[in-house]
Amino acid sequence: MSDTIEIPERSGTAFRLARGETLTVIDPRGRQVADLLAFNAEDIDEVISSGRTLDYAETIFLTTGHQLYSNRSHPMLEIVADTVGRHDFLLTPCSYDTFHHFYPDLPPHRGCFGNLAAALEPYGVTPDRIPVAFNCFMNVPVDAATGKLSVLPPISQAGDHIVFRAAMDLVIGLTACSAPASNGGSFKPIHYRIDAADQGKI
Amino acid sequence: MSDTIEIPERSGTAFRLARGETLTVIDPRGRQVADLLAFNAEDIDEVISSGRTLDYAETIFLTTGHQLYSNRSHPMLEIVADTVGRHDFLLTPCSYDTFHHFYPDLPPHRGCFGNLAAALEPYGVTPDRIPVAFNCFMNVPVDAATGKLSVLPPISQAGDHIVFRAAMDLVIGLTACSAPASNGGSFKPIHYRIDAADQGKI
Repeated sequence: MSDTIEIPERSGTAFRLARGETLTVIDPRGRQVADLLAFNAEDIDEVISSGRTLDYAETIFLTTGHQLYSNRSHPMLEIVADTVGRHDFLLTPCSYDTFHHFYPDLPPHRGCFGNLAAALEPYGVTPDRIPVAFNCFMNVPVDAATGKLSVLPPISQAGDHIVFRAAMDLVIGLTACSAPASNGGSFKPIHYRIDAADQGKI
Repeated sequence: MSDTIEIPERSGTAFRLARGETLTVIDPRGRQVADLLAFNAEDIDEVISSGRTLDYAETIFLTTGHQLYSNRSHPMLEIVADTVGRHDFLLTPCSYDTFHHFYPDLPPHRGCFGNLAAALEPYGVTPDRIPVAFNCFMNVPVDAATGKLSVLPPISQAGDHIVFRAAMDLVIGLTACSAPASNGGSFKPIHYRIDAADQGKI
């Protein structure tokens, strides 16, 4: 089993994930969101697509057994384990502008958008190429009658995790989310681990 | 009042829409979807963003008074009139692959994705740059408990319409949707009209 790596609170990182490897995203303290992006490592114009994924899955609540698709309709990641079962794939990572919109009285922050842009820059990803992220542990119910979205505290508890298996060689962007409402009012780290194709599950 | 232009069934088009002009999208026969995309005419890397829009609107059901935002958090279009009140902003335009996925027994079709890619090519938009579209008249309820998405026939009736005012100079992509389930099982044309900033409403 590989080492667990910490993403400090309100920050982000990027790394390669080879086809067949698994990525385990862990909420070490509970109620903390992690925004995840995926790009084809051989061609970053192929990118994770919320619209394509929701179209194929026919649900907004993705969990074990669901695949996350690219804009070219190729599977990028399969969810192979999930102890939470509630994640968001509707909302874009918060940027400086969205942070200021929702929290005008708080010190400004570049948000997951800024953290992802900085972390992905060495891989050739420009800010305009950042799409809707798969927001691990983010709890966004929809009111069926009115369509209203609510951003509630995650239901994840300390140690909860979600495991993805890569269906192609990928560049992954991953954060510890920076927005108060998404994380139950406090900012915590996120842990992750990469395991080779033949290694055991958590 | 400008002339009304017809988009034949299962096809698409693209055109410029200047800041301040209004675009009226009309369902002439009822129960027909039209996928809409918007790009900044001066810089096509700025593009309509479902995630940013849903984040700001805090609802999946967008209607009169809502703004459609770009990936740079700028308003692109404001909905200034809407006789239907039910449109989709979750799903990506159907492609050859999605069409085959959902309708394996029907003759293949390039779908709105292919139609938009062809229509937008002269403006420099490549297929990889096609994001989640604003799907006028598309009826996609969400089950609040399970998250399940359903693609139901539109509730629009003959003559129903939605009117957008451009907040910047835009390139617009617009289709008459090609997928059976989205359109109540038949394929109909879509009409649209562009009016100058100082012209009357429908």
